[in-house]
Amino acid sequence: MTYAIGVDLGGTKVDIGLVSTEGAIVERKRLLTDVSGGSEAILLQIVTSIEAITANQEAKPIAIGVGLPGQVASDRGVVHFAPNLQWKEVPFKAMLEASLNLPVFITNDVRAASFGEWQTGAGKGENDLVTLFIGTGIGGGIITNSHLISGAQNCAGEIGHMVIKMGGRPCTCGKTGCFEAYAGGWAIAQIAKEHAQREPNRAKCLIDRVGGDITKITAREVITCFHNGDSLAKELIQSVFDALVIGSVNVVNTLNPKRLIFGGGIMTGLSKILPQLAAGIKENALKSAADGLEVVLAGLGSDAGVIGAALYSIATTK
Amino acid sequence: MTYAIGVDLGGTKVDIGLVSTEGAIVERKRLLTDVSGGSEAILLQIVTSIEAITANQEAKPIAIGVGLPGQVASDRGVVHFAPNLQWKEVPFKAMLEASLNLPVFITNDVRAASFGEWQTGAGKGENDLVTLFIGTGIGGGIITNSHLISGAQNCAGEIGHMVIKMGGRPCTCGKTGCFEAYAGGWAIAQIAKEHAQREPNRAKCLIDRVGGDITKITAREVITCFHNGDSLAKELIQSVFDALVIGSVNVVNTLNPKRLIFGGGIMTGLSKILPQLAAGIKENALKSAADGLEVVLAGLGSDAGVIGAALYSIATTK
Repeated sequence: MTYAIGVDLGGTKVDIGLVSTEGAIVERKRLLTDVSGGSEAILLQIVTSIEAITANQEAKPIAIGVGLPGQVASDRGVVHFAPNLQWKEVPFKAMLEASLNLPVFITNDVRAASFGEWQTGAGKGENDLVTLFIGTGIGGGIITNSHLISGAQNCAGEIGHMVIKMGGRPCTCGKTGCFEAYAGGWAIAQIAKEHAQREPNRAKCLIDRVGGDITKITAREVITCFHNGDSLAKELIQSVFDALVIGSVNVVNTLNPKRLIFGGGIMTGLSKILPQLAAGIKENALKSAADGLEVVLAGLGSDAGVIGAALYSIATTK
Repeated sequence: MTYAIGVDLGGTKVDIGLVSTEGAIVERKRLLTDVSGGSEAILLQIVTSIEAITANQEAKPIAIGVGLPGQVASDRGVVHFAPNLQWKEVPFKAMLEASLNLPVFITNDVRAASFGEWQTGAGKGENDLVTLFIGTGIGGGIITNSHLISGAQNCAGEIGHMVIKMGGRPCTCGKTGCFEAYAGGWAIAQIAKEHAQREPNRAKCLIDRVGGDITKITAREVITCFHNGDSLAKELIQSVFDALVIGSVNVVNTLNPKRLIFGGGIMTGLSKILPQLAAGIKENALKSAADGLEVVLAGLGSDAGVIGAALYSIATTK
């Protein structure tokens, strides 16, 4: 059995694990990310954690994989831009390799999670698939011909910024009509707040759950009220559903994957709509592309990042 | 030098050529497709033409590649469905191989043309690119990691049926809001006809060019009037332009290609807008994905299908 360290480095927390080739997490550590300390502080957090995790283990890691929310030049291991970490042009591969005597591989967090789902999660054994992580934002991973594609600048998979409605709602990217602006967690929260301002009576369930402070409404409240049968929340989730169908149809018609894997916090909250979502996608995609399509939930939950980063480093080392 | 036969089989004409590995067409033949005669009649047309083309040539083909407008099971060489040829479940590979003593490879016509552009056209030397053929319909080819992707059911690349406007114009596929319903030749014609009905005075240029018969307006008239500076045609082409930008942005954000290649009849007619189109795509795509993106015109024109089919057969034989 081979082992590697997987690091899922986010703007809030950093998750570090010793992972086997089979995707089992042997030992792990989770900390709050020291963003304000800069890249050196985060480096120290990670190095200390890896030393603690591996200290009493027989299993020795052969590499370290890091997934983080930003654009990475994987070949050189330089993080071009990671807004949540406040990093610009950080040579994190070189920094980690100088501190620990192991090869380091750095990639985008969504791509790491996609790699994990592909290797040991809901994509296991399938070589033509797309992951769609519906969280605060929306990102995905495209595996085709047994290869996770990276794109020319290593930023393939920004499926959340596919326009599904020309001239539609403004997006955080500065443009309008993006998939994410209809189905991303931030957009669900924003649309819910707009409704709460306009029609507070209908939004009672939402407003009650945040103690009357409309600015505190998030996608979580929308999902909870939806599960409680609230009529406004049902309407809001119907719109999310429609956007999820269209965004997925676009992926299916363009890439013709065998399997579509849905992960991310929003999707976890809405897992019970998966059968209708699958039906909607098949009904709206081209028949030829939808034939035989499988629509499934991600299998690794929040561990996908750690597992994927570790397995990615093993695959790259080999 | 290696040679192969390339067959570009369309619903109107069939183009057959003896092609070198460098993409040169040594000898060729073009006929009207005998669609009403069925697959046996078309088989005979192709076999006779190949015999005529190769009869007095020193160059001997090692394989035959066929590109056709339909969904093909390339591994078995069976054409599932090709509406323009009126074919369903035709085992054309086996039929051709029984008539000619050469290995036969069958693929979708857009994929064949994409392969040609990649190998010897505007994509030469680049291994991360997307072709977009804007003709009557819109289709594309995705080359990533040095591989032309086929998808699980061999129908990847239906980029024309990516929805860019939820709830938008009806498409020939039965759904609404597709890219093709805004920028495909059939849609341009349809939108122009609607305008000609509604505002015949403004549509004078279009109506004059078809002798007063509005039903005869095609995208060709729109493009001609656009080049003549007609105000309605300029407005119509501006809408096409906007759709081309959004459709391309979706491709760029999702796949992050190094190069985007525009081909097809509509694009040939609108080649002078390429610089603005390139600027529009770069302005609207994510900065990270658009960095270094090259937007170019296809290089092989209407020969892309023949050349691509031939080169595809050589690549598959090897």
